[in-house]
Amino acid sequence: MAITERDKMYKGLLFVVSGPSGAGKGTICKRLAERFNIHLSVSMTTRVARTGEEEGISYYFTSKKVFADVLAKGGFLEHAEVYGNLYGTPKDKVIEQLERGKDVVLEIDIQGAMQIRRNYPAGKFIFILPPSMAELRKRITGRGSETEETINLRMREALKEVSYIGKYDYCVVNGDLEEAVNRVGAIITAEHSRVSEDIYRLIEQYKEEV
Amino acid sequence: MAITERDKMYKGLLFVVSGPSGAGKGTICKRLAERFNIHLSVSMTTRVARTGEEEGISYYFTSKKVFADVLAKGGFLEHAEVYGNLYGTPKDKVIEQLERGKDVVLEIDIQGAMQIRRNYPAGKFIFILPPSMAELRKRITGRGSETEETINLRMREALKEVSYIGKYDYCVVNGDLEEAVNRVGAIITAEHSRVSEDIYRLIEQYKEEV
Repeated sequence: MAITERDKMYKGLLFVVSGPSGAGKGTICKRLAERFNIHLSVSMTTRVARTGEEEGISYYFTSKKVFADVLAKGGFLEHAEVYGNLYGTPKDKVIEQLERGKDVVLEIDIQGAMQIRRNYPAGKFIFILPPSMAELRKRITGRGSETEETINLRMREALKEVSYIGKYDYCVVNGDLEEAVNRVGAIITAEHSRVSEDIYRLIEQYKEEV
Repeated sequence: MAITERDKMYKGLLFVVSGPSGAGKGTICKRLAERFNIHLSVSMTTRVARTGEEEGISYYFTSKKVFADVLAKGGFLEHAEVYGNLYGTPKDKVIEQLERGKDVVLEIDIQGAMQIRRNYPAGKFIFILPPSMAELRKRITGRGSETEETINLRMREALKEVSYIGKYDYCVVNGDLEEAVNRVGAIITAEHSRVSEDIYRLIEQYKEEV
């Protein structure tokens, strides 16, 4: 459900960090959370928790019944089915943080980002690019868990995903991790300096002072 | 003269730093130039050089005849007459730096910024606000060179100028100087991460790699 009419009331900003698998969006978001006062959005899933995964940190683990109820009420900013498991971004958790004035960072694949763009157009959309396709192949290969065929499939998938870049506001090339994190941090700072409704309120105060 | 049709060819970005007198735009620009690889635009003027002012650093000092010739050829991004002296921003100097891939920062009053906005809409416009009107009054008074009447006049002028903020892309409140400089720096970094023509060129490379 779109919530644009209320966007201006929120003090926090939603940053959607997206990009092909292997570009490093997960690591960038983790570093951001360590260095900035942001909230990392947590997905809801019907998948069974794996060893080491924690409720409310890795995911909100839930039943298919509950997931369907939330979905029916328009309670997800985006959702998807992957290998028979359902995943979704609970809208209320995101809105709660934004209303408290806290920025929310949401790490998500391209399809999810496109859904969020429809449901929350005030979000700022950041695409993480690998420095080159050769480097992306190296990163995917380095994980060691994939066959040559799967790697080629994922490379073609990545190239398709990169073609969505025009739907994004920003693009950060993740060659050096620290530099990429700094860049996303600068984007967050800059977006808070955009001329907005808040500024008009400040100016009203100025007028009263003179 | 508008140069939008060629904007996309420039690698450097033009940042226009503007705001009421006393907001601290000059100091911010000087600090930026110390910390970032940017070019500070230098104005041309028909005013006589004061002691300590250097040709090509403080201003390009010139005759009324030369100024009029440059103006007739559309050679200024903006120009104004102040107390009988002419001031202008030479377009060729700015374009030369941008074409070399260097960012240009231009410190200017609101009227000048509005002219640049018409002539170079690809510029990024940053408004520097004082933290409050009381603080602005203190800063203007602190200079010690103005009467109560002049100070009141300048305060009213400042308030009029602040109403132009909607024409700007960004607004930075200059309460703490270091923080303000960091914010403008973040804006520069973020603007270089905007999805642009350069990104599309990069993606073309990616496609050739796969």
